[in-house]
Amino acid sequence: MTKKVNIPFEERPQGSTDVMWRYSQNPVIGRYAIPTSNSIFNSAVVPFEDGFAGVFRCDNKAVQMNIFAGFSKDGINWDINHEPIEMVAGNTDMIESDYKYDPRVTWIEDRYWVTWCNGYHGPTIGIAYTFDFKTFHQCENAFLPFNRNGVLFPEKINGKYAMLSRPSDNGHTPFGDIYISYSPDMKYWGEHRCVMKVTPFELSAWQCTKIGAGSVPIKTEEGWLEFYHGVINTCNGFRYSMGAAILDLEDPSKVLYRTQPYLLAPAAPYELAGDVPNVVFPCAALSDGEKIAVYYGAADTVVGMAFAYQQELIDFIKENSI
Amino acid sequence: MTKKVNIPFEERPQGSTDVMWRYSQNPVIGRYAIPTSNSIFNSAVVPFEDGFAGVFRCDNKAVQMNIFAGFSKDGINWDINHEPIEMVAGNTDMIESDYKYDPRVTWIEDRYWVTWCNGYHGPTIGIAYTFDFKTFHQCENAFLPFNRNGVLFPEKINGKYAMLSRPSDNGHTPFGDIYISYSPDMKYWGEHRCVMKVTPFELSAWQCTKIGAGSVPIKTEEGWLEFYHGVINTCNGFRYSMGAAILDLEDPSKVLYRTQPYLLAPAAPYELAGDVPNVVFPCAALSDGEKIAVYYGAADTVVGMAFAYQQELIDFIKENSI
Amino acid sequence: MTKKVNIPFEERPQGSTDVMWRYSQNPVIGRYAIPTSNSIFNSAVVPFEDGFAGVFRCDNKAVQMNIFAGFSKDGINWDINHEPIEMVAGNTDMIESDYKYDPRVTWIEDRYWVTWCNGYHGPTIGIAYTFDFKTFHQCENAFLPFNRNGVLFPEKINGKYAMLSRPSDNGHTPFGDIYISYSPDMKYWGEHRCVMKVTPFELSAWQCTKIGAGSVPIKTEEGWLEFYHGVINTCNGFRYSMGAAILDLEDPSKVLYRTQPYLLAPAAPYELAGDVPNVVFPCAALSDGEKIAVYYGAADTVVGMAFAYQQELIDFIKENSI
Amino acid sequence: MTKKVNIPFEERPQGSTDVMWRYSQNPVIGRYAIPTSNSIFNSAVVPFEDGFAGVFRCDNKAVQMNIFAGFSKDGINWDINHEPIEMVAGNTDMIESDYKYDPRVTWIEDRYWVTWCNGYHGPTIGIAYTFDFKTFHQCENAFLPFNRNGVLFPEKINGKYAMLSRPSDNGHTPFGDIYISYSPDMKYWGEHRCVMKVTPFELSAWQCTKIGAGSVPIKTEEGWLEFYHGVINTCNGFRYSMGAAILDLEDPSKVLYRTQPYLLAPAAPYELAGDVPNVVFPCAALSDGEKIAVYYGAADTVVGMAFAYQQELIDFIKENSI
Amino acid sequence: MTKKVNIPFEERPQGSTDVMWRYSQNPVIGRYAIPTSNSIFNSAVVPFEDGFAGVFRCDNKAVQMNIFAGFSKDGINWDINHEPIEMVAGNTDMIESDYKYDPRVTWIEDRYWVTWCNGYHGPTIGIAYTFDFKTFHQCENAFLPFNRNGVLFPEKINGKYAMLSRPSDNGHTPFGDIYISYSPDMKYWGEHRCVMKVTPFELSAWQCTKIGAGSVPIKTEEGWLEFYHGVINTCNGFRYSMGAAILDLEDPSKVLYRTQPYLLAPAAPYELAGDVPNVVFPCAALSDGEKIAVYYGAADTVVGMAFAYQQELIDFIKENSI
Amino acid sequence: MTKKVNIPFEERPQGSTDVMWRYSQNPVIGRYAIPTSNSIFNSAVVPFEDGFAGVFRCDNKAVQMNIFAGFSKDGINWDINHEPIEMVAGNTDMIESDYKYDPRVTWIEDRYWVTWCNGYHGPTIGIAYTFDFKTFHQCENAFLPFNRNGVLFPEKINGKYAMLSRPSDNGHTPFGDIYISYSPDMKYWGEHRCVMKVTPFELSAWQCTKIGAGSVPIKTEEGWLEFYHGVINTCNGFRYSMGAAILDLEDPSKVLYRTQPYLLAPAAPYELAGDVPNVVFPCAALSDGEKIAVYYGAADTVVGMAFAYQQELIDFIKENSI
Repeated sequence: MTKKVNIPFEERPQGSTDVMWRYSQNPVIGRYAIPTSNSIFNSAVVPFEDGFAGVFRCDNKAVQMNIFAGFSKDGINWDINHEPIEMVAGNTDMIESDYKYDPRVTWIEDRYWVTWCNGYHGPTIGIAYTFDFKTFHQCENAFLPFNRNGVLFPEKINGKYAMLSRPSDNGHTPFGDIYISYSPDMKYWGEHRCVMKVTPFELSAWQCTKIGAGSVPIKTEEGWLEFYHGVINTCNGFRYSMGAAILDLEDPSKVLYRTQPYLLAPAAPYELAGDVPNVVFPCAALSDGEKIAVYYGAADTVVGMAFAYQQELIDFIKENSI
Repeated sequence: MTKKVNIPFEERPQGSTDVMWRYSQNPVIGRYAIPTSNSIFNSAVVPFEDGFAGVFRCDNKAVQMNIFAGFSKDGINWDINHEPIEMVAGNTDMIESDYKYDPRVTWIEDRYWVTWCNGYHGPTIGIAYTFDFKTFHQCENAFLPFNRNGVLFPEKINGKYAMLSRPSDNGHTPFGDIYISYSPDMKYWGEHRCVMKVTPFELSAWQCTKIGAGSVPIKTEEGWLEFYHGVINTCNGFRYSMGAAILDLEDPSKVLYRTQPYLLAPAAPYELAGDVPNVVFPCAALSDGEKIAVYYGAADTVVGMAFAYQQELIDFIKENSI
Repeated sequence: MTKKVNIPFEERPQGSTDVMWRYSQNPVIGRYAIPTSNSIFNSAVVPFEDGFAGVFRCDNKAVQMNIFAGFSKDGINWDINHEPIEMVAGNTDMIESDYKYDPRVTWIEDRYWVTWCNGYHGPTIGIAYTFDFKTFHQCENAFLPFNRNGVLFPEKINGKYAMLSRPSDNGHTPFGDIYISYSPDMKYWGEHRCVMKVTPFELSAWQCTKIGAGSVPIKTEEGWLEFYHGVINTCNGFRYSMGAAILDLEDPSKVLYRTQPYLLAPAAPYELAGDVPNVVFPCAALSDGEKIAVYYGAADTVVGMAFAYQQELIDFIKENSI
Repeated sequence: MTKKVNIPFEERPQGSTDVMWRYSQNPVIGRYAIPTSNSIFNSAVVPFEDGFAGVFRCDNKAVQMNIFAGFSKDGINWDINHEPIEMVAGNTDMIESDYKYDPRVTWIEDRYWVTWCNGYHGPTIGIAYTFDFKTFHQCENAFLPFNRNGVLFPEKINGKYAMLSRPSDNGHTPFGDIYISYSPDMKYWGEHRCVMKVTPFELSAWQCTKIGAGSVPIKTEEGWLEFYHGVINTCNGFRYSMGAAILDLEDPSKVLYRTQPYLLAPAAPYELAGDVPNVVFPCAALSDGEKIAVYYGAADTVVGMAFAYQQELIDFIKENSI
Repeated sequence: MTKKVNIPFEERPQGSTDVMWRYSQNPVIGRYAIPTSNSIFNSAVVPFEDGFAGVFRCDNKAVQMNIFAGFSKDGINWDINHEPIEMVAGNTDMIESDYKYDPRVTWIEDRYWVTWCNGYHGPTIGIAYTFDFKTFHQCENAFLPFNRNGVLFPEKINGKYAMLSRPSDNGHTPFGDIYISYSPDMKYWGEHRCVMKVTPFELSAWQCTKIGAGSVPIKTEEGWLEFYHGVINTCNGFRYSMGAAILDLEDPSKVLYRTQPYLLAPAAPYELAGDVPNVVFPCAALSDGEKIAVYYGAADTVVGMAFAYQQELIDFIKENSI
Repeated sequence: MTKKVNIPFEERPQGSTDVMWRYSQNPVIGRYAIPTSNSIFNSAVVPFEDGFAGVFRCDNKAVQMNIFAGFSKDGINWDINHEPIEMVAGNTDMIESDYKYDPRVTWIEDRYWVTWCNGYHGPTIGIAYTFDFKTFHQCENAFLPFNRNGVLFPEKINGKYAMLSRPSDNGHTPFGDIYISYSPDMKYWGEHRCVMKVTPFELSAWQCTKIGAGSVPIKTEEGWLEFYHGVINTCNGFRYSMGAAILDLEDPSKVLYRTQPYLLAPAAPYELAGDVPNVVFPCAALSDGEKIAVYYGAADTVVGMAFAYQQELIDFIKENSI
């Protein structure tokens, strides 16, 4: 992810001192961007060929959840397929899904890996690989239900694949912490460790109800840079904001730093109103080593982008860590 | 309802392919349209004399719920009485109500019938008739509490009055299906049958939590055309959308077709924000046999309108049926 | 019900001053009284031929709920059929049931009528008649779901059948009041009136959460004598006790008297422990005009009996009325 | 409070007949008014020197709640300190707080008193005094947890300090009434009396779930004029509106008048959308004896102002009293 | 309390090694010990004249809660008045109560003080004094609602009355910790401090949901010996057990020792079954300096006793402290 | 497990026709069988040397949950160690546990394997092996939290270890189905498949809320014989009963037969009353090929035994299958 690509970016607005700022043309993908869609949000983007490819959550007008491939030259203007991804068998024949949502994508070694929330008697983590974003090979679900927000590391750690995830229940889960699990083969998973838990209300209320991994971690000299979401339960429902953590490169179950303040919280109109008001939900981040572009779902309705300078952001995380 | 009247209508916007579209001048009735009102929504309209009459839910600034008569030449510009409807005895002397809300109106044989959610030790279905929208004769409540969304068919079926309704509980009911009941005399009701249930989440999530009848059914050659609302329970509350079904003419407990996608879901600003965000709630539909105009409550605050071409809509329902 | 029959009875125990007392041989029907039963409780008894007949709730060992006919010479020793009642069509062809439980029985004019909680997309009130307790003719459900504890009066009132019932929700309903409804024909029901509501906690806590009609009312000079159950919600669940009310003969929606203290509350071992601890639930009462025998379900597991002197009981109700 | 000060004010808009109206330049304080703030709302203002001082709830970007002093010449343009108030010992050494929010301020006799919701093993009422809005002396918490919305009267009553408050629980309390308590010394409190309870849903639904004192009461000839908030629990969460009551001058536990309609309910965009949608929450009121200016939190995000003519408002309250 | 009285006692059963053991003749007071009672439990006992007096919670058969005086020569055989205590004005004229339950009694200086859970718009702590257990003078409620388990210390501490209590909510509170408050005059209360909180589930699960003070503290050289109840929330409801703590003599908000294991948990039949199964709830303790007798409510139905040797108990608490 | 051992057994009582019957000397292990125990239940037994060994859940009097080894000559009279099992590192160094409960034990190939509910940031499945029931080697937890009732098959299936388990949430989970997972090495797990789900209420209510694997499956010619528990949610809490299923030998995710009626449900006094009333919870079964002995926890307090003839039981399951 950190190879030099020409990532989409916009400089910090004049007068702003924020470490992360919104794209002035947000939302970059509207709710009706494909003919059948009710909403497009919580989607993943990765450098591909001479531009970018993505896997997008497009809920249709029956509010069925599915994931769609898309392509872009600049990371901002997207052609999203009108038909959802159809899976072929990867390391399993069981490739059924009641629904698919909240995809993440990363390149590992020789191919692209997609993870998503996969409906198999409840939400769990689906896995597939693709070489071309045309044919996708579905693998065994990583875990038993109930789980959400499965995010792969972009390289093996100590010789094994590593995945962040958030064990859940079968509804609008009112709790949730981030764990890491390892696999030798993308089929069997174990060595589960707790990575990050919710914070005490008094310490950092925006992430006191539940948290979940967001983007595929970005490798930096300081450690793995991970954007995640945190939730506070107000009297009028959940409010989702974005923070970031830096995990140890060798043992990413160790949190080195973690933002006490949020980086981005719902405040723009397209974040405050929509199918689910007050949601900022990061699912992907691009880095060229200097600049960072984050893709996030807004109000469970559209896709927005936010930007940061990587070193400045890392400094901010370290200086504002819990 | 299907007699040729000059119904309010606006052609489909250029570039739109939607089978149903919003009126460009929405909302047609604002929240403060009468001096005492906090909000006006979930209201019913019917052809009357050389124009239209309606029964409107106007919550006052004490947030007391009541129904008011109103009149219009064109179905769009309304004069709503400043005083609520006062009932006189119909087939009963018990005409008390703790509150009245969500009215529907239809002509049957020789008079107009109004049904509404009537507060009698909880919500149940109130019934009244009027010849002139001046004097209203209240009849026995159709059912025991707890019930909401009682909607009469515009003619007798097999010699009996027929009513759709949604059995409920005494709060913000988190379940609800549509039933039909019959009466020989608008006083005693029976032959209760289940008509439509909520859908599996995977199949059509916008209507997976509860559904309720909306408009008085429109008689067509294909069957009874019924607009209804469906609800999904998001982590930030209920979201109400509109769909449609076609019921068998002879036995309307049989659902012939029913939309898997919604027809209209909250997306306009006046639907996304208001006293109850994310509500589209149809209570009336006008048809001249070719065009259809639907009146719906938006965000429990104002009244909006949406339009369709009848045959195209029927085709859509049949092609997109569950 | 008040004709002179030789009802089962046992005198008040020496030393007791209670107005109602338990049968010393309780429980009269054990949980395994028929080969398939897990529990037999909440059952109804009526004079029949030269003895008694009954309709019994026998949950089987799959914990499926159904009703069974039974016969007894003395009202205490019972032969309960090993097969549940199979219905034939009465005034309807819709005689399906997901489950049947909590029956009541009464004679009206020329036949025996049975009501019970009938599973039709949730609990509602099933109705059937029989002449011989062999063939049962099922009629239309009285009401839409959700309803429980439907109890018929033993004669028409003002020319109409009258039924008490308790509107409910679709689970372990945490509320419930008693209503009355009327029918000209046992098919269509209306004229619904609220009869009795739960009491304020401070006034009579045993009946502050929900109440429901129990026995078929007994006609007395003072009014209709009705045994009912009341529920308090303790920190360890619902506790069901028995009280009694006297309703106006002409207009039984008027409560003349109603016990502030309970008549019988869970205290015997077979009431305190069982499938649902702490339940006393009356479903039938026999009277010869002087003595009264009540049949009640105990701990949702077995059937118990309790006795009273009718005049003394009426005096007690009047003197201890709310 | 009623001394002649030059309070901020704007005349009623042309065409409006509302007894209270919003400031045309709302919100007067934006969510990012100080560098660290996520939101500034539910704040208190009092005349101070030749202008005004205030105590402001500023949640920072970790969503930690704290109170900040601020100053203004005109009551509209504010300089809010960038650092929260640091307390010194008043009548106690226990001046710890897990959090501080929703301050109120009043002058009594010789100093300014601040009350707020103080985090001590849950929310309770914190008390402090200041002479200069620079040094604040924290006193004993008034009550055991759990309590919110503690509001002092601006003078002693019968020789004792008097405080309104709302006993709560430890979460998003779904109930709440207003009580009064007295203290001889701002350290020990007693003589607790219930003042106002929520209203029946049918009578005034906007205040049927919970109510809480808002502004420091204004002494008028008619009694203590108190702005308070009321809450209705919609299917999409709590909606907070503003009403007013007049309490007896001698015995303020007696409510003389209380508005059945609300005075101001969420309708402006900054009230409908924000961190908690649909909140109007008064915390302070200025009066010059003729005009009134109310400061209220909007959507738990910003501060708005609303105005009224005092005598007209009092007449309105008396004429529209429950 | 620690003066030499001839307290009721029974030696430890042979073979037992328990530090606290049940009286072999339990329950000492049955549920029907007075004519009107449904249950007698959670009651308080104190040395009086040449024997003992007590204040008893007797719920009547309407399940109304009230407190009754009673007398005993030996502390085991009791004469409980058949009429509840009627209060006269103490330091207030407001002596109304919606209900009274769970009394405690202690001698301080010149009179006996009774505290109980007093119904005033919800549960709070009522206070009264008596010289003779015939005339009781009711004082101001100590706190705002909602509170339960108010227990006075038997002497002033630093010149002030001191009371333990447990802030609650208005239902079957699922949380609860023990606080202390002080009063110069039994009228105004303040200086509230948290004393003991629930334990982590892993550390001591029987007291992980809520705890509450039980007996009036016994003064010992080691500190104040306090019996309290702890609650675990099982899948079938709350289970109440008894533990003990030793509080600092000078500053009883400091817990010196506290039992990790319970001292007594529901295991006897009269503790396992009754109106509320699985409850052991201490409300009083007698000590002669060597032996201790505890009175506790069992299953919210009857009164039991348990015994211990004081020094052995103190050693046990110290050795098994958290 | 099916090798010829002399298993504990008692013939069916005279007059009984039950396919499974209780041991007449139940409970076989009392709640205080070791000095520190509050309760001993939900425990596992396996043939060992010339008798039996077991792993027992003994909650101590702080209600801390832990597992203890025990030994018996006859399977009925047990010596349980007074100290809990202390783990040494198996295939991991992470051998911490917040608590351990509900063990199961089986022999696979060369050693005994123990699984249990292991507290690691919530309940998950712990694994250990032992050769001698003295030294236990703890391995990686099988799954992420939240999971309960992990039960190993007694031999590898298709070359892999196989485990049944029940994904849960972090409280008194109100749902739960049985899944199977596979592992090549007891460290990494995958190939998760749903095996059995709860039944519709109408079909078999005793298992309609949640189900969980009980005993280590017994290999028979008909398939794997598995005893499991099923739960119904009554208005007074969960009721746990025992049923049995036969799973396909080759692919145990296929259920061949499953009992519609329960085999054993709470009815004996020690099952109806205790720390958690109404619990029958099987955790182990011994078979000599002809006779079967099941060990089950009763009321979360003691251990009971029940017996069956294997072939008769299998015939019963096949004849009474859903």
